Amino acid sequence: MTNVVRFLPDNVEIAVEQGENLLAAAAKAGVYIHAYCGGDGVCGKCKVKIKEGELSSEQAQNLKADEYKQGIRLACQTSVISDMVVEIPEEVNKEGKVLKRKPITTRAISARSLDELIGTWTINPPVEKRFIKLDPPTSEDNTADLQRLQRALQKSCGGENKAITYDHPEMLQELATTLREANWEVTVIILRCKLPEEPNRIIAVEPGDTTDRLYGLAVDIGTTTLGGILIDLNTGKVLAESSAYNSQIRYGEDVISRIIYSQRPGGLKRLQDRVVYTINEIIQSICKKQLISPSDISYIMAAGNTVMSHLFLGINPKYLREAPYVPVCSQFPLTRAASLGIMAHPSVRLFLYPAIASYVGGDIVSGVHACRMYKSPELTLFIDIGTNGEIVVGNQDWMMCTACSAGPAFEGGGIKYGMRASNGAIENFHIHPETYEPMIVTIGQSKPRGICGSGLISIVSELLEAKVIDQQGKFNRKIDHPRVRQGEDGYEYVLVWGKESLTREDIVVTEVDLDNLIRAKGAMYAGYQTLLDSVGLSFVDLDRVILAGNFGAYIDLERAISIGMLPDIDRDKFYYLGNASLLGAQISLTDRVRFMERLQVRSLMTNMELSENSNFMNHYMAALFLPHTDMSLFPSMEKKFATDQ
Amino acid sequence: MTNVVRFLPDNVEIAVEQGENLLAAAAKAGVYIHAYCGGDGVCGKCKVKIKEGELSSEQAQNLKADEYKQGIRLACQTSVISDMVVEIPEEVNKEGKVLKRKPITTRAISARSLDELIGTWTINPPVEKRFIKLDPPTSEDNTADLQRLQRALQKSCGGENKAITYDHPEMLQELATTLREANWEVTVIILRCKLPEEPNRIIAVEPGDTTDRLYGLAVDIGTTTLGGILIDLNTGKVLAESSAYNSQIRYGEDVISRIIYSQRPGGLKRLQDRVVYTINEIIQSICKKQLISPSDISYIMAAGNTVMSHLFLGINPKYLREAPYVPVCSQFPLTRAASLGIMAHPSVRLFLYPAIASYVGGDIVSGVHACRMYKSPELTLFIDIGTNGEIVVGNQDWMMCTACSAGPAFEGGGIKYGMRASNGAIENFHIHPETYEPMIVTIGQSKPRGICGSGLISIVSELLEAKVIDQQGKFNRKIDHPRVRQGEDGYEYVLVWGKESLTREDIVVTEVDLDNLIRAKGAMYAGYQTLLDSVGLSFVDLDRVILAGNFGAYIDLERAISIGMLPDIDRDKFYYLGNASLLGAQISLTDRVRFMERLQVRSLMTNMELSENSNFMNHYMAALFLPHTDMSLFPSMEKKFATDQ
Repeated sequence: MTNVVRFLPDNVEIAVEQGENLLAAAAKAGVYIHAYCGGDGVCGKCKVKIKEGELSSEQAQNLKADEYKQGIRLACQTSVISDMVVEIPEEVNKEGKVLKRKPITTRAISARSLDELIGTWTINPPVEKRFIKLDPPTSEDNTADLQRLQRALQKSCGGENKAITYDHPEMLQELATTLREANWEVTVIILRCKLPEEPNRIIAVEPGDTTDRLYGLAVDIGTTTLGGILIDLNTGKVLAESSAYNSQIRYGEDVISRIIYSQRPGGLKRLQDRVVYTINEIIQSICKKQLISPSDISYIMAAGNTVMSHLFLGINPKYLREAPYVPVCSQFPLTRAASLGIMAHPSVRLFLYPAIASYVGGDIVSGVHACRMYKSPELTLFIDIGTNGEIVVGNQDWMMCTACSAGPAFEGGGIKYGMRASNGAIENFHIHPETYEPMIVTIGQSKPRGICGSGLISIVSELLEAKVIDQQGKFNRKIDHPRVRQGEDGYEYVLVWGKESLTREDIVVTEVDLDNLIRAKGAMYAGYQTLLDSVGLSFVDLDRVILAGNFGAYIDLERAISIGMLPDIDRDKFYYLGNASLLGAQISLTDRVRFMERLQVRSLMTNMELSENSNFMNHYMAALFLPHTDMSLFPSMEKKFATDQ
Repeated sequence: MTNVVRFLPDNVEIAVEQGENLLAAAAKAGVYIHAYCGGDGVCGKCKVKIKEGELSSEQAQNLKADEYKQGIRLACQTSVISDMVVEIPEEVNKEGKVLKRKPITTRAISARSLDELIGTWTINPPVEKRFIKLDPPTSEDNTADLQRLQRALQKSCGGENKAITYDHPEMLQELATTLREANWEVTVIILRCKLPEEPNRIIAVEPGDTTDRLYGLAVDIGTTTLGGILIDLNTGKVLAESSAYNSQIRYGEDVISRIIYSQRPGGLKRLQDRVVYTINEIIQSICKKQLISPSDISYIMAAGNTVMSHLFLGINPKYLREAPYVPVCSQFPLTRAASLGIMAHPSVRLFLYPAIASYVGGDIVSGVHACRMYKSPELTLFIDIGTNGEIVVGNQDWMMCTACSAGPAFEGGGIKYGMRASNGAIENFHIHPETYEPMIVTIGQSKPRGICGSGLISIVSELLEAKVIDQQGKFNRKIDHPRVRQGEDGYEYVLVWGKESLTREDIVVTEVDLDNLIRAKGAMYAGYQTLLDSVGLSFVDLDRVILAGNFGAYIDLERAISIGMLPDIDRDKFYYLGNASLLGAQISLTDRVRFMERLQVRSLMTNMELSENSNFMNHYMAALFLPHTDMSLFPSMEKKFATDQ
């Protein structure tokens, strides 16, 4: 449920999820509120007056009793629980002069949800359960247990004269006991064949009627985080979700350092063990929530990038990072989950999405699969931003894809106070155009610890707009303000003074950080251009831009465009898909027909290597500017820069 | 190579393998030579004069120098190394009277070899090796290693546009390294699909050109002994053979006691481990002989009875011995050998012949498969004699099969001095018709230790013919001879006096032993009759009798008929197949087309349970006589008994 918050005097409205923090809502709406402490209520600066709407009743720190009675609250301590009208007090400078409020230019525009594009899917999973009552054996009919079961299954399928097989001895070990203890009434889990000529496969036999319990697990195997969704395959309903940090992280933050680690004696095995361990953590957490046993999970669909897929299967990833960047395999085998050490019934299969190339992996294939761009005539740009930005462009007739080493800036890597998007990370930022004082919003409204990717985009965009930095990412040396100073690594802006930060250190953003971000966004943008060039198209031809990945959810579209990270086209063309990799796995798990379509995805996708592509290098050099050296590519920014001057 | 030995004065010829022991040759020819000690040269009784042929030159014990010069030798110390004429000295009793030599009546008739019936098979194994030179990857073509390999394989197959797959991640683990270290020149082991619509499967990739090394292993998993044959799948040649006692024996001599043991905690696992251990022993022994590595074996075909097959796969055999005798499965899965713990390349498949019923197992199916009775119009009786006698009767249109609990008498079980056919076991026996003195031939010409199955058949047949026992298996109380005496268990015949036996005990055959043998052979004979009755046929309709099993090789046909163990029909109808189970596995391993025919075997074979069959019980009661209560079934014996009287 959403509530609308109107901020006065700017008269800006924003719709937010009920329960959203009011300070964060203001930041999203582009409404500046003085706020130093990130939102933990300490600085006491972010006083607002609630003019309409329900008021949270607790007495906040740093408020006088009469202020409280007048409806004044600390925005950072207030949750939105109804529609509201909120007045931001006027600010005055030392001389008592009312300061200009920040004009609304970077109000967050959320990309549209892709629900209508994902389409519907039916409940038609690759596994099914069938309850069977067998005739007990007699001396006239002492057919073997398994053959008796196969016979009964074929009968129960009626007209469908489909062969039924099974393929691993483990299933047989307890069959005799199960059948007899269950009085010959059992539920059979069947893996439905992929091709008409293939036989269906029995994967497990359970005593009694358990047809109401049929679960599948979708897993996204990320470099940093793994996510899992438990789905009731009888209804298609999501029953539980869980995520966990990839416990491989101890052996390296990114895929390259993990490939290097895998070459040490025992390294590959250790990395494999860690990712399996993390999946088991997710399974345990999900099963605990739903009070089911891991062995109740009947199918697992997973997707991960190519390096993670190799490591997960224990396949040597060495050559993924050596030119010409060759994976060991791009179509991964349908594996028995238990054989990898996954806590699951010994028969349960694990499907891993195929990869396209060394740096365009199954996570991207799964995302493309989820959004069905391969079925649409519309020209679509699919972007997954992370350490490696993956880009796909195309439609129902063709798809080109590539990966560009954006570097880890978007995930906080290579940034002095960079951090992952977790509690205490600055995720939103505004700067007062006159005082240059910041408005800091942290994840979890905690004391600031550092800056995450979306925070960094906010900061660069705001500093640029306030002309604290120029289009090359250099600080304006003319500004005389305590927050703009010469630091250890050159010029920097102090976001948080030590007294308000968790670490007691000043948190700053440096010119080196700005350089890193510019290179990262420049690589992405040059990637889009190179792919489009290769097919003779340009940004104006794009019908849709789809942002995938968890990071995509937190991008302020306008700001990302303003720094040249996303193309400056009609904002209505942008869609946000979320964890597309997990979504694809979820759809495949539920709908066998949609699952089969993945073959279409693979056959349409052509990879392009950028590492030695001279066109890419040219585009990249031109993109090392905010937003771009060629301002004609950013018409709305061009206008803005013109207006400002 | 064979040599002919002619014995004088009886003027009996026998062809034997070069190197055969002369005493054993005489015994096979039905020529009586006085010999107490089993053949170890101690008693010095078996003196013969070599009249023609090469003489072994060593001075034997117990021979005078002048005897030696005259060409006199101990038969038991002499090997046949050329054609020979051998004179047996006349025997005289205490009064100097020349004793009647034994008339030739039970001269061994070997069953004919089945070579012509097995037919030929082509070299067309289920696995093949293909040497491939791959194009190394470039930045223009950085297809994944596996897909590169698949592409090259498909190209190398020419017109055959067959899908090529693989199915286990282990193969991928070293693929990248193998390809690069081998400079992209590798040999691929392919498992050829069974059905046209199925894809061929890559099971391993080896550096360089190893196409000249393609080996398969055929294994017979017997209750007592396991046998293995290594076959060069490029030539079909048998390279090495090995056998080993089933090390499950410590947990029980027969299948029933092993089923009982399997029900103890950890019992099933222990039994499985032991049979795997034994197979590994065979593999090691064979590989050592041929200087190959176990991982060079590319396919394993195995056959065993139903209980052994269950134990081998770790499947609970409990219900095999409880009415209505239901196996867990009769078609066993195509397993990866390594997953069972077998020393083999991780990809290597192990095929286990399907069973028909709880006591008609894959060993019988393999035997029937080998002899192709399912392709012949001739009515064939297939017999595998052991603790469980398995019987199949039929032709190309139908086959009935059954098992009868013959009891362990044929394998030395339940016999006072019974033992398995190993060194020191009495395997052949003649009795002097006047002196009642024995001629004892042991396996390995060692000091006697006991009696094996073929020895027991000789003994009973000889005692019956000499009228030492009657047709009910009771001793003739009127005989006054130190060897015929009242012992602990009733009447008995002393085969070996303590002073000549290994154990220093008298070795005897008792009336209880005779009873056990009569019950065993009676069960077999009643089994043949019941199967034939069930289809309205009788012995005269039989075109062929095929004796399978190692035991079959040592059966003296005439004697086995004389005691009623085999039907009294034209001796030319008998064929000896040897270890049919191993032979079937060997043929299947080499010839994929023959292998596919096994489906025909399964579909034609119908099992009949004898345990509650009243017709069987009637036949069985009538067969508890030597050779049978209905002497019209044994016309040649009837005549003989008539002649004698």
